[in-house]
Amino acid sequence: MTSKPIHIYDTTLRDGSQGEGVSFSLNDKLQIALRLAETGVDFIEGGYPLSNEKDVAFFQEIQEHDLGDTQVCAFGMTRRRGVDAADDPGMKALVAARTPVITVVGKTWDYHATEVLRVSLEENLAMIGESVQFLAGHSAVIYDAEHFFDGYRANPDYALQTLRAAASGGATVMSLCDTNGGSLPEQIAEITGAAIDSLRDYPGVTFGIHCHNDSELAVANSLAAVDVGATQVQGTINGIGERCGNADLISVMANLALKKKGYSVLGGRSLQPLTELSRFVYETANLQWRGGQPFVGQSAFAHKGGMHVHAINKAASTYEHIDPALVGNERRILVSELSGRSNIVAVANKHSIEDDREIQDKILAEVVRLENQGFQFENAGGSFDLLIKRVLGTFTPHFSPIKYRVVAGETSADEKDVYAEAILKIRVGDQDCFNAAEGHGPVNALDTALRETLLPSYPQLRDMRLVDYKVRVVDNGAGTAASTRVNIESADHHESWGTIGVSDNIIEASFQALIDSVEYKLHKENVTPAT
Amino acid sequence: MTSKPIHIYDTTLRDGSQGEGVSFSLNDKLQIALRLAETGVDFIEGGYPLSNEKDVAFFQEIQEHDLGDTQVCAFGMTRRRGVDAADDPGMKALVAARTPVITVVGKTWDYHATEVLRVSLEENLAMIGESVQFLAGHSAVIYDAEHFFDGYRANPDYALQTLRAAASGGATVMSLCDTNGGSLPEQIAEITGAAIDSLRDYPGVTFGIHCHNDSELAVANSLAAVDVGATQVQGTINGIGERCGNADLISVMANLALKKKGYSVLGGRSLQPLTELSRFVYETANLQWRGGQPFVGQSAFAHKGGMHVHAINKAASTYEHIDPALVGNERRILVSELSGRSNIVAVANKHSIEDDREIQDKILAEVVRLENQGFQFENAGGSFDLLIKRVLGTFTPHFSPIKYRVVAGETSADEKDVYAEAILKIRVGDQDCFNAAEGHGPVNALDTALRETLLPSYPQLRDMRLVDYKVRVVDNGAGTAASTRVNIESADHHESWGTIGVSDNIIEASFQALIDSVEYKLHKENVTPAT
Repeated sequence: MTSKPIHIYDTTLRDGSQGEGVSFSLNDKLQIALRLAETGVDFIEGGYPLSNEKDVAFFQEIQEHDLGDTQVCAFGMTRRRGVDAADDPGMKALVAARTPVITVVGKTWDYHATEVLRVSLEENLAMIGESVQFLAGHSAVIYDAEHFFDGYRANPDYALQTLRAAASGGATVMSLCDTNGGSLPEQIAEITGAAIDSLRDYPGVTFGIHCHNDSELAVANSLAAVDVGATQVQGTINGIGERCGNADLISVMANLALKKKGYSVLGGRSLQPLTELSRFVYETANLQWRGGQPFVGQSAFAHKGGMHVHAINKAASTYEHIDPALVGNERRILVSELSGRSNIVAVANKHSIEDDREIQDKILAEVVRLENQGFQFENAGGSFDLLIKRVLGTFTPHFSPIKYRVVAGETSADEKDVYAEAILKIRVGDQDCFNAAEGHGPVNALDTALRETLLPSYPQLRDMRLVDYKVRVVDNGAGTAASTRVNIESADHHESWGTIGVSDNIIEASFQALIDSVEYKLHKENVTPAT
Repeated sequence: MTSKPIHIYDTTLRDGSQGEGVSFSLNDKLQIALRLAETGVDFIEGGYPLSNEKDVAFFQEIQEHDLGDTQVCAFGMTRRRGVDAADDPGMKALVAARTPVITVVGKTWDYHATEVLRVSLEENLAMIGESVQFLAGHSAVIYDAEHFFDGYRANPDYALQTLRAAASGGATVMSLCDTNGGSLPEQIAEITGAAIDSLRDYPGVTFGIHCHNDSELAVANSLAAVDVGATQVQGTINGIGERCGNADLISVMANLALKKKGYSVLGGRSLQPLTELSRFVYETANLQWRGGQPFVGQSAFAHKGGMHVHAINKAASTYEHIDPALVGNERRILVSELSGRSNIVAVANKHSIEDDREIQDKILAEVVRLENQGFQFENAGGSFDLLIKRVLGTFTPHFSPIKYRVVAGETSADEKDVYAEAILKIRVGDQDCFNAAEGHGPVNALDTALRETLLPSYPQLRDMRLVDYKVRVVDNGAGTAASTRVNIESADHHESWGTIGVSDNIIEASFQALIDSVEYKLHKENVTPAT
């Protein structure tokens, strides 16, 4: 059976950047575009050249790169009223971006044209038709029909006229936008079908769908449009975007390629890069990962209930809807008070405790005790490994903290001299070592002092680095007096590991996590403690 | 037109607690149950009494409370193989919970029965029928058909036989579970329809739907089942739950009551409590709010694009799919480099700068400059208000920092003595004030020292408190040396406000945010600076 190709149109760099807390630098945009092209996305909407200089620079610089079959699109609005398309600054900016595709958005909804734009319905049709015609002289044109579904519900005849204006002007794709994200799948299917039917006399025109997630239906709505004939889906990576975001292209692609029958995406390429792509976009946008994100989230194949873990070990399909490797993700077994022994054994399998119920109970009891203090081992595999070693009696510390003190301050408000220092005394073997360091902030100073003190005895620490540092107030509601949980992610050339500390003092919590991160590194390399 | 009531079955306390990072205390569970009952939810699944003592205690204590028409359900599995239902510990635990409704889960999927449970297909049917029959002698019984959709696809006859076994035993609701969350809406509709058809000879039996979000379709799938006749929807508040979570009951309720035609939920009650309910559950579960959550997220009606803000001011329906007040949410206008003047003016409207383009440009330039340093004003309305005042020249500081120093440390690793102190010198009027304080952590000490120093001059600060403190590493990848952004949320009896600080030193960033939080309070009350 041949499958029908569905084109993926990514607007992470344009509509995605409208999301709360999202702000891309020029370099961010270039990096993301290159990753999208590598993944095989069909179209990348790079920005809105009239709106800012950064987007103008993006379209210039992206031309230096080979994007394979991926096409870059510049986005803009139809010409203003009462201006010739050729004289309109927005039109000129779109042409100047010199992209193979231009996407131009026009108004579908009669109410929107007359109440917000304050133009007559005839003038709006002229603005669409003339803008598209002018742009089609320079590039292929995709027409974004803003508010198509609201507009169709209000005035179906007029909504279809706007599409015909764009098709007559030479647009080759009609992208139907559920701009407010308020439509239901049955409405999307019905109205998309009506639009396709009404443009049968333009055989060269194809249809796209652009959904927002305000009703938590963006993915279902996108699939509903594909089922009635749309061949292009617009959306963003991770669904970032204004308000509740856009359709998450990751879920759209995975559903089309792995679940629904008869469709292909990315020219049939593998979806394995999707998990890394998702995390790359979060990191670049400086957003927190969404653990429960379908397909690619860290929790998407994480198992906590003891009964589920038991079953998973027997037959994965009992609690996994797809093989996580298909999207580059992996199974995780979580440790918590709900875990039961199955989870403990699964996580601790390298410690060979499968048959020792007494040890399993002791570990479980220790987990419960620490969770009550605010610890969570789900993202702290390094600390959990050390916990097991402590219960088994195989943990030998490589050093013992004796005391530390950090000092941080500022000497003048006008010309700021901000400083941070740490002093530290630890016992390594039979030596008391005393050291001090400066740093960017007290935790960095403490980290530096600890490593400098340990390096002479443990040169293995040289290739270890901290890759992330996170602070979470465990008990909200108490402000700065609340307990804090610090998670540190460390890495060497081979792997990364998480460690944790909890205290009402942020410095103490950080120090606990730092100590665990160093001990984990030394234990995993079987380094003999200094004597 | 009369609308068809759809019953809402909440399993936040049972299935929701399987979510990564979720852990409810007994008190948490009671508080959430009371809020759910107040909201008018039909059923609350309180827990799994066989699994732990906390759930046993929950069922005991909840009996002391009046929940109105809301019914509490105890959850458990069918009897073990080879044991009489009356002798099975799980069955006994369910009966001992003394709930008006018992929900019992059984295996639908032939593969699951034979491969995981290791029972014959006949024994599995007997386990279902006898368990339901035994429980129905004590309470109303809801039967959860685990893996119903996978099971039906594998062996439709057997899947339907399991339902008939439960119906014969006396279960009144068949809840069809998409346990792996892998089904598509068209599959849910078709298979739910088939199940309903095949049990026409049990006229007292109704149908429920229980979806997981692994394909990002849980809400759409729940609605699809309702469209073919299901009258009960199971899910959790905020969609918390294992892996990618359960169907979010908030989106399900809002879609059924506000968007689809012909259905009612919560006995026709208002959905206004939903936003507060959502945040209450996040806070109780100690999870971060999901800003982009449909309907109730902080960003769900937040507008950032200048063009959208311009349109919203003219006609809200152009970019809002519902009136946010219907679900207890509200519109927010965000400030960022993409904002353009419309946003600045909308946020700053109390400063009357609508007609002053020069001032608008200055504010925008200052926002862009600070955003480049890592500031984000979207959640820092207090700091943004002070920024406007500074640009307008109407900001008069109530004090000036001269220097501060914090010290935090630990004197012994074995018997920990963790301490934190702050010393602070500030100028208030013509006085240099020097003060010191201890605290839980260095930021709390600094906060205490600052307030104690200011209180004699500004007694208005007495009713102000910090309600949240958040730290975010702005530049991931650099570990503890990365720049940190601190957000503080403060409140008095009338309102709450956010302030922000950014520095590579966490203490300095915290101090900036603390200063802004105090200055905002004093400015909003027009307190005259001390002289």
